[in-house]
Amino acid sequence: MPAFMDALAAAVRAKRSPLMVGLDPRLGNLPDGLRPADGASLAEIAEAFRAHSCGVIDAVADLTPIVKPQAAFFEQLGPAGMTALAAVIDHAHAAGLLVCVDGKRNDIGSTAEAYADGWLGAVSPWRGDALTVSPYLGDDSLEPFTKVAAARNAGVFILVKTSNPGGGTFQDKLVDGEPLYRRVGAHVEATSAASAGECGYGVAGAVVGATYPEQLAELRAAMPHTWFLVPGFGAQGGAATDVAGGFAADGLGAVVNSSRGVIFAYEKRPHADGWQAAVRVAAEEAVQQLREIMPGG
Amino acid sequence: MPAFMDALAAAVRAKRSPLMVGLDPRLGNLPDGLRPADGASLAEIAEAFRAHSCGVIDAVADLTPIVKPQAAFFEQLGPAGMTALAAVIDHAHAAGLLVCVDGKRNDIGSTAEAYADGWLGAVSPWRGDALTVSPYLGDDSLEPFTKVAAARNAGVFILVKTSNPGGGTFQDKLVDGEPLYRRVGAHVEATSAASAGECGYGVAGAVVGATYPEQLAELRAAMPHTWFLVPGFGAQGGAATDVAGGFAADGLGAVVNSSRGVIFAYEKRPHADGWQAAVRVAAEEAVQQLREIMPGG
Repeated sequence: MPAFMDALAAAVRAKRSPLMVGLDPRLGNLPDGLRPADGASLAEIAEAFRAHSCGVIDAVADLTPIVKPQAAFFEQLGPAGMTALAAVIDHAHAAGLLVCVDGKRNDIGSTAEAYADGWLGAVSPWRGDALTVSPYLGDDSLEPFTKVAAARNAGVFILVKTSNPGGGTFQDKLVDGEPLYRRVGAHVEATSAASAGECGYGVAGAVVGATYPEQLAELRAAMPHTWFLVPGFGAQGGAATDVAGGFAADGLGAVVNSSRGVIFAYEKRPHADGWQAAVRVAAEEAVQQLREIMPGG
Repeated sequence: MPAFMDALAAAVRAKRSPLMVGLDPRLGNLPDGLRPADGASLAEIAEAFRAHSCGVIDAVADLTPIVKPQAAFFEQLGPAGMTALAAVIDHAHAAGLLVCVDGKRNDIGSTAEAYADGWLGAVSPWRGDALTVSPYLGDDSLEPFTKVAAARNAGVFILVKTSNPGGGTFQDKLVDGEPLYRRVGAHVEATSAASAGECGYGVAGAVVGATYPEQLAELRAAMPHTWFLVPGFGAQGGAATDVAGGFAADGLGAVVNSSRGVIFAYEKRPHADGWQAAVRVAAEEAVQQLREIMPGG
């Protein structure tokens, strides 16, 4: 079994697609036929979330190397939601996709290890291939995640520069003349330089938002061994040209996430063949846009 | 229903106890009689975790105002673990305790809102009274948590200065001459000054580790409207005198967490009356130590 970043690089090449599809099910955005009745139980809503996410996977599986289920939307429904999340991960694997669980987890020492064990396989039913992780707790909170990930051929994506307008509140604060996110980025890069696999990228990836194109290009240059997860493309306002700086010269080094713009595409542009066809059209268009700006794409 | 911090202040006063008991079940530390057989299923381990945490609650309910289940250890077991966590929260409420879920969650915008909705009641079965939250994503990632908490008479505890040795990796970096954790602390204090309830404390609390006693006292002075959750007491090395600086002059303003030192006390000091008696003795001793250093305690 290859290291996670090697598997990701191979899948991006095979599909000529750096598109990551974010699975963020929301009750108010489910299509007709999947929307539960008013007063539905948490179990019924969880089943609708499962059906929607699995339906999205079926519609886009040949267009994307990796999907990113957002833990919050499943967690919100209690244990029934977590059961649905496990089913979605299984379904993605059966469709040949990699899975990055977007949990933004972190904690100290053996607690961080418990999160890594839980999400990155072996013990729990959540057999994610990668997990997003938050860095505020420092180096000894990140190490258990990267160690477990390395041992299991899994990956982590550590928040470096996030896509939200308030991302700069603390991330942009200057530390010895450079913004904090550069410090976090340097830490991630050191970990990945020391664990780089065949494709040249190491176990620790970085979350770097599409909404800050200059910082994205700056970090790409500073972090040559770090694969980027780039959120903010599409519904959050980032254009394809904004993410161009995230790629290395060979076209690798970044996956670009789109959630709402793909998975709820039927709301703005319904398709005669049903909601999944609308999702597929949106994913095809996103891939086309990304191929145009991806070096060698 | 009172605001969360008012309820917490009243419970600390009524029990003359600022002890928070952390519920961190670990398979290798369960007492005889609760330890599952080798090869036990996740559901069997989850049931053992539930039985241990509920047994701890029964042993300490009159000695502590609040318990803090650690999400990671339940999450590690998959949906069965999450079902156990919900049962532990219910059991704590039935025993008259407040519950702070230690999840260190965060995300942006409506995703943060989904976490807050999920953990702080109304929709999911996880009816936590408070939730720990990580600040790296910035102000617009914290606001959904504090808004939902304020609307539901719940609370959040935002990581400011954590107890782990690596907590300083980013938290201690100087920003305009002061460490980053002071910036985060100032943000939390501003939120709580604007939402202070009858007891004088607002919706946003702060996690400030006992392992840094000087910073604890410094932050207490700088954050008069912010209740502190102080981890690191006991097993992590913080002594009772180290946490003294976390209290305000009236003895309020801090709860001091002990996990391993209480919940696995039977390992080092077994009790003739069984594991719960050993847990109770350790909790009584911790309360006694804290009363000695708590102003007015």
